[in-house]
Amino acid sequence: MPTYKLTYFNFAGLGEPIRWMLSYLDVPFEDNRIEREQWPTIKSTTPYGQVPVLEVDGKQVCQSTAIARYLGKKAGLAGSNEWEDLMIDTMIDTFNDFRSSISKWFRESDEATKKRLEETLLNETVPFYFNKFNDHIKNNGGYLANGKLSWGDIYFISIPEFMTTIWSDIIDKYEHIKALNDKVVNLPKIKAWIEKRPVPKK
Amino acid sequence: MPTYKLTYFNFAGLGEPIRWMLSYLDVPFEDNRIEREQWPTIKSTTPYGQVPVLEVDGKQVCQSTAIARYLGKKAGLAGSNEWEDLMIDTMIDTFNDFRSSISKWFRESDEATKKRLEETLLNETVPFYFNKFNDHIKNNGGYLANGKLSWGDIYFISIPEFMTTIWSDIIDKYEHIKALNDKVVNLPKIKAWIEKRPVPKK
Repeated sequence: MPTYKLTYFNFAGLGEPIRWMLSYLDVPFEDNRIEREQWPTIKSTTPYGQVPVLEVDGKQVCQSTAIARYLGKKAGLAGSNEWEDLMIDTMIDTFNDFRSSISKWFRESDEATKKRLEETLLNETVPFYFNKFNDHIKNNGGYLANGKLSWGDIYFISIPEFMTTIWSDIIDKYEHIKALNDKVVNLPKIKAWIEKRPVPKK
Repeated sequence: MPTYKLTYFNFAGLGEPIRWMLSYLDVPFEDNRIEREQWPTIKSTTPYGQVPVLEVDGKQVCQSTAIARYLGKKAGLAGSNEWEDLMIDTMIDTFNDFRSSISKWFRESDEATKKRLEETLLNETVPFYFNKFNDHIKNNGGYLANGKLSWGDIYFISIPEFMTTIWSDIIDKYEHIKALNDKVVNLPKIKAWIEKRPVPKK
């Protein structure tokens, strides 16, 4: 069995989909959580100045989506054919477009700009995407694609689940996203991870 | 054989990697190029308000990377195993991080901000990423991953090839990117496409 070491900050963010996939796979992994003050030193040791970085038998790999897809194949959670894989990938890349708006808000240090970004995010970006995702999940048998669980569902849900720590009711209005959330967080291995994971200080 | 219809603007951008992949596959496709003034009408007919959209037997699919990966599998240009696929995917997602800086510049309408973004792009972002990509290609037998041609090379090169229409010498300093560019644009089917493709007005 390969050894896995995940390096990311001490919060959910883009580390969490990988932690969920490794938990689903039921493989041991080192959950290397770094604090903000360590980042300048660690940054230059990463392939492209970014985390998460997953070391697989000591080989560094970056990019959370690429890593989740890889682990998804190992877990039997890829599509059954090329078209099914495309259906997962197109949704995840669309979701990542949405996610980039959250990152922009998250990284903004100017208080006034951050407030303005949050308003646009909550009043425009979230409703635009979440209404579409909600309908899409409804039309796909309660899953993100192909009417069945895939790595895409785990990747997708890990982010709104994190968002609820900031905006507690963010998915409540979206019945089918909420139902998918409940399905994913109750997968036994993911439920066990959520129960035992460290709770970062606010 | 499925029917393919690609809808995108009348320039290279994110439509071009798909046009290159379809050309490499040697399948006929409708190259539906829209003008700026048509966009507000067409936008609402797309799945998430974005192009490119590829219609495969009438089914709309968005997201250029997901589409290129799908066509890459059909063309025999995916990795030979899960690890090789990961090596392609991690590079393409990293490249897309870089590409988002170009998009930001491209979309900026304020002249002063655009000038400032261009300076950062050319003096910081391009050198940071292109030096790393150049070394990476050098260390991977002249390709983006796995020492052999993949859909990732075609996706990757289509963008700097477009960038040279804006900044003509952008890749000249990067020997291994330049060599990969020359390899990809001389693949017979891609060469034939480049020779026959429409040349948009500047």
